[in-house]
Amino acid sequence: MPEPVHRVTFMPDDITVDVFRHGETLLRVAMAAGVHINASCGGNGTCGKCKVIVDRGLVESKPSAKLSDEQWEQGYRLACLTKVMGDLVVTIPPESRIDNAALKARTGGKRHILKARDLNTLVQGLTVDPAVWKLYLELPPPTPDDNLSDLGRLMRELKRRHGLDGISTDFRLLTRIARLLRDADWQVTVTLVYNPKGLKLIDVEPGDTTERNFSIIIDVGTTTVKGQLLDLRECRVAAAGKDCDDDEEANLLAEDARYNSQVRFGEDVISRIVHSQKGDGLRELQQAVVGDINEIIRALLGQSGIDRENLSHMVVAGNTTMTQLLLGIDPKYIREDPYVPTANFFPPVRGIDIGLNLPEHVHLYTFPLVSSYVGGDIVAGILGSGIFQREDLTLFIDVGTNGEIVLGNCDWLVCTSCSAGPAFEGGGVKHGMRATRGAIEQVRINPETFEPMVITIGNRKPLGICGSGLIDAVAEMLITGIVEPNGKFNRGLGTDRIRETEGAWEYLLVPAAEADGVGDIVITEGDLDNLIRTKGAIYAGCRILLESVGMTFAELDRLIIAGGFGQFINLERAVTIGLLPEIPVDKFMFVGNGALLGARLVSFSREMMRDARRVSDMMTNIELANNMRFMDEYVAALFLPHTDTNAFPEVMKLIHPDPAT
Amino acid sequence: MPEPVHRVTFMPDDITVDVFRHGETLLRVAMAAGVHINASCGGNGTCGKCKVIVDRGLVESKPSAKLSDEQWEQGYRLACLTKVMGDLVVTIPPESRIDNAALKARTGGKRHILKARDLNTLVQGLTVDPAVWKLYLELPPPTPDDNLSDLGRLMRELKRRHGLDGISTDFRLLTRIARLLRDADWQVTVTLVYNPKGLKLIDVEPGDTTERNFSIIIDVGTTTVKGQLLDLRECRVAAAGKDCDDDEEANLLAEDARYNSQVRFGEDVISRIVHSQKGDGLRELQQAVVGDINEIIRALLGQSGIDRENLSHMVVAGNTTMTQLLLGIDPKYIREDPYVPTANFFPPVRGIDIGLNLPEHVHLYTFPLVSSYVGGDIVAGILGSGIFQREDLTLFIDVGTNGEIVLGNCDWLVCTSCSAGPAFEGGGVKHGMRATRGAIEQVRINPETFEPMVITIGNRKPLGICGSGLIDAVAEMLITGIVEPNGKFNRGLGTDRIRETEGAWEYLLVPAAEADGVGDIVITEGDLDNLIRTKGAIYAGCRILLESVGMTFAELDRLIIAGGFGQFINLERAVTIGLLPEIPVDKFMFVGNGALLGARLVSFSREMMRDARRVSDMMTNIELANNMRFMDEYVAALFLPHTDTNAFPEVMKLIHPDPAT
Repeated sequence: MPEPVHRVTFMPDDITVDVFRHGETLLRVAMAAGVHINASCGGNGTCGKCKVIVDRGLVESKPSAKLSDEQWEQGYRLACLTKVMGDLVVTIPPESRIDNAALKARTGGKRHILKARDLNTLVQGLTVDPAVWKLYLELPPPTPDDNLSDLGRLMRELKRRHGLDGISTDFRLLTRIARLLRDADWQVTVTLVYNPKGLKLIDVEPGDTTERNFSIIIDVGTTTVKGQLLDLRECRVAAAGKDCDDDEEANLLAEDARYNSQVRFGEDVISRIVHSQKGDGLRELQQAVVGDINEIIRALLGQSGIDRENLSHMVVAGNTTMTQLLLGIDPKYIREDPYVPTANFFPPVRGIDIGLNLPEHVHLYTFPLVSSYVGGDIVAGILGSGIFQREDLTLFIDVGTNGEIVLGNCDWLVCTSCSAGPAFEGGGVKHGMRATRGAIEQVRINPETFEPMVITIGNRKPLGICGSGLIDAVAEMLITGIVEPNGKFNRGLGTDRIRETEGAWEYLLVPAAEADGVGDIVITEGDLDNLIRTKGAIYAGCRILLESVGMTFAELDRLIIAGGFGQFINLERAVTIGLLPEIPVDKFMFVGNGALLGARLVSFSREMMRDARRVSDMMTNIELANNMRFMDEYVAALFLPHTDTNAFPEVMKLIHPDPAT
Repeated sequence: MPEPVHRVTFMPDDITVDVFRHGETLLRVAMAAGVHINASCGGNGTCGKCKVIVDRGLVESKPSAKLSDEQWEQGYRLACLTKVMGDLVVTIPPESRIDNAALKARTGGKRHILKARDLNTLVQGLTVDPAVWKLYLELPPPTPDDNLSDLGRLMRELKRRHGLDGISTDFRLLTRIARLLRDADWQVTVTLVYNPKGLKLIDVEPGDTTERNFSIIIDVGTTTVKGQLLDLRECRVAAAGKDCDDDEEANLLAEDARYNSQVRFGEDVISRIVHSQKGDGLRELQQAVVGDINEIIRALLGQSGIDRENLSHMVVAGNTTMTQLLLGIDPKYIREDPYVPTANFFPPVRGIDIGLNLPEHVHLYTFPLVSSYVGGDIVAGILGSGIFQREDLTLFIDVGTNGEIVLGNCDWLVCTSCSAGPAFEGGGVKHGMRATRGAIEQVRINPETFEPMVITIGNRKPLGICGSGLIDAVAEMLITGIVEPNGKFNRGLGTDRIRETEGAWEYLLVPAAEADGVGDIVITEGDLDNLIRTKGAIYAGCRILLESVGMTFAELDRLIIAGGFGQFINLERAVTIGLLPEIPVDKFMFVGNGALLGARLVSFSREMMRDARRVSDMMTNIELANNMRFMDEYVAALFLPHTDTNAFPEVMKLIHPDPAT
C-alpha cells in the first residue's frame, strides 16, 4: 500500500483520515472517509452546500459567489474547490453536516486496489524470456572456402553463438535478406519469435538494434480498446520486477485507450454479431476495430517517440466475439445455440494481413479462448493473476457488459459467463452513462433528510450516473430505507425526492437546476430492476460454479475482481447490494485490467505463452443458458442483498441499524 | 528392356536389327543399326538418295517424284518415307550404299534409356505416404453438452479416428470453416500437409473428396518448364509401384512442357541475373515463369479434366537461379564471387502469393539446393536415382546449359558445376538450335566420300543442328578423319565439303538446296572449339570430383546421365568425343528428367521429403572457378577425345582403324 502524504482531521467528530494524493479535494477526502458533507452539484462549486472551515494547515482554494468575504476571512471554504496541500484540521459547520453517527460504522472501507505491478508477485517463476527478441550478430563474410548461403550463414551463427537450432524463416524476409546483409556489412540484428511450432526468424536489420525492441499489447473490449507500448529489452524487463518509486512500470512506455468504433453498429456483442450478418457487416466491424487499434498504435508511438519499425510484436486479448471480429472470422455461431466459436486458438497472423499499420514482420498473437462467452481476455486475466499456479482457491470475476467468472486453482479451473446486461456500463439505466467526465461516481444519502451528496468524475455538473455511482446510490438507498429489499421504493418516507412520474416511481438524485442541462437526474424502479438482475446473475453464476465443485463462498481463499469496472467500485457497496458475497474483506483483491496484465506477461515470457494455452485447455466451461439450477439461484438473488439474508449478516446490520427491528 | 515388335534384315550385308516401334521409318531403323543409307534432306523425301528395295514383308510407303513408276513396281522405296509394319528383308542398292564394313564395329550401341518408372526400383523403401493427403470425417454436430469450438471438433476427430495430434492450421481457412462445416452437415474432407514443422490443416471441403487429391510437379529449367499432374490417391500411388503394361505411370495423369518465357530476357542464368538487376527486371522474370507455370497448370487440368479445386500440392525443382527467380528472390549474388545463394531451403509458400493460379490452400514446395550452381533439380535427381541410399559408387551427370556433377554413395556426396556453355542446347554453335522439329539429330558420314546422312526431328527439311546431332556429327568427323584430335579440320582430304569461308574453316553438312531456307548448314571450327570446351569442362569436373576422394573412373560402379539431353545422346558417340569416360557400357544409365523424378517421389512420400533435405545437407560443393587443378584437367581435356589417349583405348581404335598407324 502507498504511504499517505497528508492527514486531515474532521471536527467536531474528530475523524482523522489519510490522504494519498497531494492536492486532493477536501470533498473527496471526506467522501472517502465516510464523512458526510452536503453537496449535490457533483463537486463543481455551484450548489455551495459543501461549506467547511479550515482551522489549521495549508490548502489551495478558489473563492466562490456562495461565500461572502466575511466567511472567507473566517476560514470558510467550499470543500469541493479546496485542495489539501498539507496536514489539516477542518470543521464541518452545522449547515453542511448531519449527525453522522450512523455512518461511522461504515468508514474504513478500503478499495484494495492493487497496482498491476504488484501482480508480478502473484505469478510464480516468471523468467524474463520474451516471445520476441533480438540478437546482434557479426557474420564472417562469405569467401570461396566458406560460401554457405546467406540464410545458412545466419543460422550457423545463431547456432554457434547462441545454441539456437531448428529455426524456421518467414518467406518474405528471404526476398530481401541478401542485399540487406551486404549493405549492413554483415553486421545485423535478427528478430526471433517463439511460436507454438518453435522459433521463427522474422526480421533482419542492419547494425545493432537490440536496444530497440518493443511490443504493443491490446485489450479489445466491447466498449473500449486499450493499448500499451512495452519495452522488451531485457534490462527493462528485469527492472519491472524490482521496486519502482514511480507508479508506472519501467517497461511501460505509453498507454492509450479509445472507444471501440464498432459501437456504432451495436452496443453489445450480440448486436455486433447481428450486424456482421448483414451485407458487408463483418468487414465493416473488422475495419472499425482495426482503425481503432491503428489509432492507438499511432498514439503510443507519438507519446513515446519510438519508430514504428522498432515494433516487434503485438499481443491481443479480447472476448471471443471481439477476437473473431478483429481477425475477420464470421462470429455467427457464437450467438446460436449451442454457442460455438470457430477455434480456441488462432494461429499468429501477420498484422498487415488484417490491415494493421505495423511493420511487415510483426505478428499478432491472440490469446486462446475457452468458449463463445469466456474469451481471451479472461484467459489473460487468469494467467495474469496467477490463479493457475496456486494451490489455494480463487474466484475470479470480471464484470463488464457480460460477467465472466472463473473458479479454481493450479489443478482445475471452471468458468462461466452470465449475460449480466450492461447496467454497470450505463446501459438500460435511464440516466446511465459510461464512466466519463460528468458521471456521478459516488453518492451519499443523508439518512435523516434523504438528501444526497454526489461527486462526479472531473468534478463537473452531473450528466448522468455510471456503474459504480449506481451501485453506490442503490447501496445508500437500501441502507437508508429509500429502497426496499424487493427493489421497490419506500413510498411512505415523506420526502419529495421519492416521487411518481408518469406512473413510475423514482428517486430524484440531482434536480435539473444542478445538473448539466439534462433535466432531473433520477433513479427509477426500472433502473433498480435492471441492476438487481445484473447483480443477481453474477452472484448466481458464482454460486453455480462453487456448487459444481461442491464448495461455498466460505471456502474461498481469495476473490479477485477484474475489469476496468472493478477499479472503481467500492467493495463494501458491492457487497451491500449483493453483487459480491459477504466474505472477509481481506480476501478481496482488485486486479484492474486483467487482459492487459496477461498480455504483458505473454510479451515478456515464452513460458507464459505456453501457459496461456494450457490455462485455456484447463478451463471447463459451464453453460448457464439452459441450466435449471442457475435459474433457481438467479431468482433467489433478485433481492437486495439476497433472499438468503443469512448470507449477508453484516449488510443486514446496516440495513436494520436498530437491532430491535 | 522392351520387346522388339519387328525385325528387319538389311541385304546384302545380312544385318538383322530389332524394331521397337510399329511404324518406325526404315531410315531410322537403318541409322540405329549403323547401316548407312545416303540421305541428306533430314528424312523428308526431297533428296531422294535413300532408295531401298523392299524384298519381303509389310510396309507403308508414299510415292515420290524421286521414284519412277518402274522403280516403284520393282519394290524401290525411299527409306525415309517407308514405315515398318512387319518383319522385313530390305536390300540397299549400290547407289544408296557404301561398303559399310568399317561401320560394323560400331553397331550394337544401346541407348540404355531407363523409363522413369523403372527408377522406383532404384529407391529403397519408398513407403507411399504423400506429403499432402485427405481424410473424410463425419463429425458429431455440437450440442449444449459438447460445444467445443469448430476447429477443436475437427482436431478431436483427427485424434480420435486417426491418432493425429499437434496439427497447426492455416489462418485463412479459419475465416470460412464455421459456415462450411454447417453447410456440409458436418461431413467434410480435410486436407493435411506435412511440412518441416509438422502437420498443417490447409483445407476443408464439404462431403467426401478423398478420391480427388492431385499434385502438380514442375521442373523449372533455364530453357524448358515441364509439368506433370499426379494422382495422390493411395490406390493409384500403390499401383505405380507395380508393373504397368502401359508406358505411362498409373498416377501420371497429364504432362506438359513449354519454353521458359524468361528466354526473352536472356538465354542462360547469367544473362537472366543481369536482367534481374535492371529496373523491374526481377518482377518481369518472376512473372514470365509464373505465366509459364500457369499455362502448364491450365494444360494439365485441360488434358485430365480435373478441377483446379482438387489440386492439393505443388512441388518445384529447379536450379538455384530458377528457384530464386520463381520465388521473387533477388539472385544478384549467385553470380558474384563467392557465389552465394540466399538460402539452401525456402519455406513452403502459398502458390497464390507468388501469382500462381492455384487454389488458396495449395503450397509450393521447392527442392532444397546445395549452392549457387548445384540446385534443387540436382538434389531431386540424386533423390530420384537413389544414389544417397546405395553403398556402391555412382557418378551422376546432368548436362544442360550448365553441367552439374555429383559423386558419392549413401555415406558421402560431393558435387560441382561446370560452366559447360550452351553448346548442347544449340547456343554458341553457328547453326545450333534447340531439339525441335527440323533439328538435325543424327548424322552418319561416309568414310570414303565424306558425304553425310542426316535425320532431323520430325523428318523435316533441316533447319539447324541440335546438341545430340552435333555430338553425332563431331564423332563421325573424328572417326572419318575430317576433324583432327586438336579440333581442326583436315584440309587435305580432297572433299569440297571441307572448305574455307571468309577465313574460317567449315564442313558443309547440308547444302542450302536441301535445307529449309536457312542457307548452307555447316559446322565451323568455332563450333568445334565450343563443343570441345564444353565436353572438356564436364570431363575435367568429373576428374576433379573423383580426385577429391582419391578415386578414378575405373572405380565407378555406375554412371548416371540425367537431363532431357541425356535421353537423346548416343552413349558411344559421347564417349567418342571424350564427353563421357570410356568405361564398360553396362555401367551407364540414363534417367531422363531427374528433377521430375525426385519431385514425384517427394509428392508421394514424406520420408522422401525429409531425405531431400538430408541429401542437400550431405552434398559437399567443390567450387571449380578458382581451382588450379581443374584448370590443368580442363586444358588436358581440350582434345578429341583427350590428350590422355590411354584413357580411351576403344575410341582410339575407331579413329585409327588401321592398327598399323
